[in-house]
Amino acid sequence: MCRWMAWSGQPLIVEELLFKTEHGLVDQSLHSRMGVETTNGDGFGLGWYGQGEGPAVYRSIAPAWGDANLRELAAHVEAPMFIAHVRATTGTAIQQTNCHPFRHGRWLFVHNGVINGFHELRRDLMLAVDPSLFPNIEGSTDSEVVFHLALTFGLEDDPIGGVEKAIGFVEATAEQHGIENPVQASMGLTDGECLYAFRYSTERKSRTLFSSCDAAAVRELHPQNERLQRLQDEDRVVVSEPLADLPGVWESIAESTVLVVQPGPDEHRPFRPQVPAQAAAI
Amino acid sequence: MCRWMAWSGQPLIVEELLFKTEHGLVDQSLHSRMGVETTNGDGFGLGWYGQGEGPAVYRSIAPAWGDANLRELAAHVEAPMFIAHVRATTGTAIQQTNCHPFRHGRWLFVHNGVINGFHELRRDLMLAVDPSLFPNIEGSTDSEVVFHLALTFGLEDDPIGGVEKAIGFVEATAEQHGIENPVQASMGLTDGECLYAFRYSTERKSRTLFSSCDAAAVRELHPQNERLQRLQDEDRVVVSEPLADLPGVWESIAESTVLVVQPGPDEHRPFRPQVPAQAAAI
Amino acid sequence: MCRWMAWSGQPLIVEELLFKTEHGLVDQSLHSRMGVETTNGDGFGLGWYGQGEGPAVYRSIAPAWGDANLRELAAHVEAPMFIAHVRATTGTAIQQTNCHPFRHGRWLFVHNGVINGFHELRRDLMLAVDPSLFPNIEGSTDSEVVFHLALTFGLEDDPIGGVEKAIGFVEATAEQHGIENPVQASMGLTDGECLYAFRYSTERKSRTLFSSCDAAAVRELHPQNERLQRLQDEDRVVVSEPLADLPGVWESIAESTVLVVQPGPDEHRPFRPQVPAQAAAI
Amino acid sequence: MCRWMAWSGQPLIVEELLFKTEHGLVDQSLHSRMGVETTNGDGFGLGWYGQGEGPAVYRSIAPAWGDANLRELAAHVEAPMFIAHVRATTGTAIQQTNCHPFRHGRWLFVHNGVINGFHELRRDLMLAVDPSLFPNIEGSTDSEVVFHLALTFGLEDDPIGGVEKAIGFVEATAEQHGIENPVQASMGLTDGECLYAFRYSTERKSRTLFSSCDAAAVRELHPQNERLQRLQDEDRVVVSEPLADLPGVWESIAESTVLVVQPGPDEHRPFRPQVPAQAAAI
Repeated sequence: MCRWMAWSGQPLIVEELLFKTEHGLVDQSLHSRMGVETTNGDGFGLGWYGQGEGPAVYRSIAPAWGDANLRELAAHVEAPMFIAHVRATTGTAIQQTNCHPFRHGRWLFVHNGVINGFHELRRDLMLAVDPSLFPNIEGSTDSEVVFHLALTFGLEDDPIGGVEKAIGFVEATAEQHGIENPVQASMGLTDGECLYAFRYSTERKSRTLFSSCDAAAVRELHPQNERLQRLQDEDRVVVSEPLADLPGVWESIAESTVLVVQPGPDEHRPFRPQVPAQAAAI
Repeated sequence: MCRWMAWSGQPLIVEELLFKTEHGLVDQSLHSRMGVETTNGDGFGLGWYGQGEGPAVYRSIAPAWGDANLRELAAHVEAPMFIAHVRATTGTAIQQTNCHPFRHGRWLFVHNGVINGFHELRRDLMLAVDPSLFPNIEGSTDSEVVFHLALTFGLEDDPIGGVEKAIGFVEATAEQHGIENPVQASMGLTDGECLYAFRYSTERKSRTLFSSCDAAAVRELHPQNERLQRLQDEDRVVVSEPLADLPGVWESIAESTVLVVQPGPDEHRPFRPQVPAQAAAI
Repeated sequence: MCRWMAWSGQPLIVEELLFKTEHGLVDQSLHSRMGVETTNGDGFGLGWYGQGEGPAVYRSIAPAWGDANLRELAAHVEAPMFIAHVRATTGTAIQQTNCHPFRHGRWLFVHNGVINGFHELRRDLMLAVDPSLFPNIEGSTDSEVVFHLALTFGLEDDPIGGVEKAIGFVEATAEQHGIENPVQASMGLTDGECLYAFRYSTERKSRTLFSSCDAAAVRELHPQNERLQRLQDEDRVVVSEPLADLPGVWESIAESTVLVVQPGPDEHRPFRPQVPAQAAAI
Repeated sequence: MCRWMAWSGQPLIVEELLFKTEHGLVDQSLHSRMGVETTNGDGFGLGWYGQGEGPAVYRSIAPAWGDANLRELAAHVEAPMFIAHVRATTGTAIQQTNCHPFRHGRWLFVHNGVINGFHELRRDLMLAVDPSLFPNIEGSTDSEVVFHLALTFGLEDDPIGGVEKAIGFVEATAEQHGIENPVQASMGLTDGECLYAFRYSTERKSRTLFSSCDAAAVRELHPQNERLQRLQDEDRVVVSEPLADLPGVWESIAESTVLVVQPGPDEHRPFRPQVPAQAAAI
């Protein structure tokens, strides 16, 4: 059912979080402890904002734990913002275009969860995608369609609103089809400046999602831990499940909430799906 | 721009045609002589009717010339009907779900050519696919959409009519978008009993397509050629380009024509795109 | 640490054992219950004796559970003898040439286990391989070297003796290097006529290995089980772990033993590593 | 038969040379003009000295022209030294461990060419590799063995001498086996500080190899070419075949010569294979 993580803060060599933690994302690909599936071996992806223009994306259908190139990149890419995802397919094909993150311009998007009844809903959801965006859908996942719906509904100008409308539209469409509890989602979104971490499900029993606590507090709690001592005030990690069992380091992101990681104080905002006006008219 | 071939006749070990001919399909993947592109290295596929139920499909994104598994299968699969395809992408992703043949029930479909302006037409064409078939579209190629349009328009009951309506619909849609010469196609279709080989393009300058001549005539012309002497009366090969430079062995399939390879005498029929009634109403 | 299975008996569609059993090999690739590792996702292989000459081998670095082609082949290949393997690497590269089964002429070989200290022993072991066989080693696994040692020591004329000498040679070489408990092995070997299933480790604590019980007894025990009722007297399955929890269907192959599945009554013979004469002289 | 290129100079985004030139290496993978084979589609590799410790290596078995990840990396990796290689196998397996560059510590090595009779020579050559280096050989190419021979013969202290001894040893071994013209090689070697470009073959008819001319001269010759105007005095490109048809930009590296690209004036030195003392004693 996938796992993901994101880093926002001082420039960091990716492997510090992906490989060198006790229970990093690559370890989670092989042995997830909190996921619906214990194995997330159906491909992975890494997106980062570093050298060159715009975000880079490396995606592969190999399991993350065995991909030699991922180890290379993780050891040789440094970035102030990156987002990684390991996939466990819920039935769609194992192919690069189904691996997260998905990209549009400066934006990257990842999703852990599922749209229930997607097989039945897929056509209606795709029809609602803006015709100019439609040709950009390359794969067959529910996640890529959700991202393009959010883009359709204004994500680039209003990221939270765009996602709220996308999810609201999915729920409205599902209701027309008599599908219950359509949305199960923990989602990450970033433009390289801000990071949005969403936790939401129709039934209000969402997949786990955690963020690292205030860096100053973390440093004070663990004075002997060298790695944690290097944390700076603007550093923040978001993860599907904690990278290590350290008290006071991780806090759960609340149900139906979005955490906004940004320059200055971060914010927790409510996440309220909306039925978009243009869709209501369909 | 792809190459394909098909065999219909006595049960044959696949490698006899794929690897053991002077200029077989795998050689064409590396050095096509008549194709728009000389290299067809963006994946391949093999479909066959042999053991087990229904057709089997093996598809890979590796170049055909270098895939060790293809050599194994070709040497160990025997079938009275098989169809193979090597791909040169016109821009869509290199992934298994974009490799031919495409399958629906007992049917296999391959396409060499292109829908011009597909990026622009894709949404309209996909909307015309029957909602019950829509979720089966797994990849992002024009070819897979054409196949699902043909299925929508009755391919299973009337194979030639289904394809004529699909192509007619593409041409009508392209006209609405002001796109010229939308269809360039050599296509193969089979249910394991009959093989249909279509050659058509809107501008009437279609990709090459050949069939082997009458087996009796071929045997008589080449009495010293052991392989050709083994040809039986019902055997027929269809190829994008001849497998070897042998006089009297290959005949070009005429423009705007479909060759029907079937038990008893084969037939050449005209191919006339039609605008389907249901689409006309859209 | 790998899992494997083999079938010898009436011609069978491969998927019957690979996919359609309660806890078949592909399920074991994702959730092994008795293996050292629970996930065997570092590639797989299938070898069979069917159409065409000699054994066919299909190997892939994708996890078995997600490989679309494996599903296709399993549903469309029928054979009286086949052997399949799912891999969990102990450190060597994930590549086709490291996937089992390994082949030499009519012979196929699979191995679940490890040569401890192989990194240190590799050179000495490879030097002992017959120079005419040396160039055939394409990968970097301990298993492939063991197979080529067995071939060097006469496997083709005396299969059990060849393997006993290979293992004896590994143990003798390890002793020179001060490596304890060098061999941990459950191995499968077949020429398409007989199937040899070895269970051995230097410390006499070998990986699990089971065979199906006498077909007549199995049928009698489970009169309501349609699949088991179809078992014929010469049918035999060998597996790293049972395919289903059915009492009286599976028996453990004893420590330091080789089961010979052959026309007529099968045999259990002792397995006693020998130091080969030619190696003793090195 | 492979193609390669290397950059040494000011930090450069890799795609500038790999993709944005008229006839860059990726274009050469599809349409080589000077190579023995026109298609170099059996994998590729890119090594660079940038962020993180030591050189990074990205290798893939996909054709370079179709690998989406290569495009991503090329657009987002900036380095003052990088080396890239596209492969056309001469028979050995298509697998990552057979893709160039090969790495040892800070060193990267690429090879375009072939050791004739390698199948026969492989065992003798591998035996001469230092036992401590032997386990590092992961693939099955002649190139990787040549690199490990050069390491055995002192490459890290004396790069040119190490390669001269490796080639001398191959030639001596081939002579013992009665193999003529064993070595055909254009090779690249770097530790991130200096770049060595070797051109040598036993028969003195070596594969093509070019370097860019003195940057000042190039700028003066092409005052209108913006890209060339950005060349700085220490910048140097080495390529199997010129990236564009520009007069005065490329000079052929002479037969039996090694170009040393280094801080300060570069040097052309003779390349003279030597039979290493320790090997002579074997």
